[in-house]
Amino acid sequence: MKLVRIGSIGRETPGVLVDDETFVDLSDVVVDFNEAFFRSGSLATLGELVAERIATNRSEPLDGRRFGAPIARPHQILCIGLNYSDHAAETGQAVPDEPILFTKSPNTLVGPDDDVVIPRGSEKTDWEVELGIVIGRHCSYLADEAEAAASIAGYVLVNDVSERAWQLERNGQWSKGKSAPTFNPAGPYLVTPDEIGDPLDLDMWLDIDGTRLQTGSTSRMVFSPTFIVHYLSQFMALEPGDLINTGTPPGVGMGQSPQFYLKGGEVMNLGITRLGTQTQHVIRHTDPAR
Amino acid sequence: MKLVRIGSIGRETPGVLVDDETFVDLSDVVVDFNEAFFRSGSLATLGELVAERIATNRSEPLDGRRFGAPIARPHQILCIGLNYSDHAAETGQAVPDEPILFTKSPNTLVGPDDDVVIPRGSEKTDWEVELGIVIGRHCSYLADEAEAAASIAGYVLVNDVSERAWQLERNGQWSKGKSAPTFNPAGPYLVTPDEIGDPLDLDMWLDIDGTRLQTGSTSRMVFSPTFIVHYLSQFMALEPGDLINTGTPPGVGMGQSPQFYLKGGEVMNLGITRLGTQTQHVIRHTDPAR
Repeated sequence: MKLVRIGSIGRETPGVLVDDETFVDLSDVVVDFNEAFFRSGSLATLGELVAERIATNRSEPLDGRRFGAPIARPHQILCIGLNYSDHAAETGQAVPDEPILFTKSPNTLVGPDDDVVIPRGSEKTDWEVELGIVIGRHCSYLADEAEAAASIAGYVLVNDVSERAWQLERNGQWSKGKSAPTFNPAGPYLVTPDEIGDPLDLDMWLDIDGTRLQTGSTSRMVFSPTFIVHYLSQFMALEPGDLINTGTPPGVGMGQSPQFYLKGGEVMNLGITRLGTQTQHVIRHTDPAR
Repeated sequence: MKLVRIGSIGRETPGVLVDDETFVDLSDVVVDFNEAFFRSGSLATLGELVAERIATNRSEPLDGRRFGAPIARPHQILCIGLNYSDHAAETGQAVPDEPILFTKSPNTLVGPDDDVVIPRGSEKTDWEVELGIVIGRHCSYLADEAEAAASIAGYVLVNDVSERAWQLERNGQWSKGKSAPTFNPAGPYLVTPDEIGDPLDLDMWLDIDGTRLQTGSTSRMVFSPTFIVHYLSQFMALEPGDLINTGTPPGVGMGQSPQFYLKGGEVMNLGITRLGTQTQHVIRHTDPAR
């Protein structure tokens, strides 16, 4: 199943994608794909309802409407750093022996094709295609990776946009360079685990202005999604609807020789197998007031 | 004005404290002291309503009821590291030349007198009395510190409980050791700026089992509350109701010689001038399942 949130910014309605051009609106039965929805366990029975609506011709054309992020603003956006051996190498850092955790401000979440805004004063805004995990239930001290697997609501494509100078040269911690508005495009859809196949066998890519810069595969992840979810649950309680960005493959701006970053005016295209694609226009923050 | 949330865990109702034994219940007009409340600007007119209710004898005895945290779970809990020159010295780290930012999971928020739980496997759970700032409106690219001052809804006493091994010895970032359940007691009340006086002239203290371990003053803060709010708004958008822990004075367990940490069974008492006091019993997480 592919969960979507369709409509203008702040007015998205929840639904399920039927095919590339059609969806089933669920706004009469689901308030939003938020913490309360995932906590309720309603996801498990949604397939039945959607099938019934498709059978009774209650699907609708997308008609070019905007995709929002497929989940509402979560309790937390957690991120795993340096989780691809080849990306760690390009940044000159060692492969970690246990996950590096940092956070992004939850209000960075935007739709898959929304503009990405280079924040004021930024000179090193960078891109990161990533596999995102959406948590399906409250997770605290999970017993093992099997329990972690059962706690994953689905997967989502994300662009973990980063300001490298703010992340690494401004006295830390990394969150400082990860949290500017629009820095977390997600979507177009949340894909439930039954449709994803092996999450450790997905190709991923990112282009800037048509040039392929990131090429990777989740097969190169150091710590798998189930390892990460089990691991994090030992340090904190994850809430239903929380998003975990699991790290990026090589090819970020910081890893280029010479390094280069977004200047404004670029188009970013990115995708992961079975998780769809995103297109973002990069603009500079120019508003001198707010 | 002193905002409070009174009642059992998860069922707190919002109100305003009249004196040590009396409060005005506002649950008929305020859903909660949450993001929507602070965004609405209702705080500015609450005083009038409270005065009217006091005048018409609509205040109630507290009758020993529990204080919850005075704000609902916020969008973010942000923390400033090493923000007291004397605390930086005791941890052997340099005074930062700009604020160090890290985050705590928002679901760490508990009431001022709730139990603090040493998480499973922890050997270095530590205490930190701190001045907390509660944000009153959406803050992005604030122009100056005057605008930051106008964006502060109030101040709150917090204990920024920390697991030092997880924070510093487990591959980073600091958030990993700051986010266990119950790690952010807050309250008993949010004090509005008009009642706090000079936020840079507040005494602060923390006792473990009656022994004074932390003694400090906000006069030793490296970066002031208005500096911090203005600064953070250049890197991210703060939301109404967000909590910022502004750092701790000397006397944490990590700063003792020899170092020592909580083992379970202790009582922590802490306070800040005009922000009230907290009492927490420290217990070990013993539940083998969840």
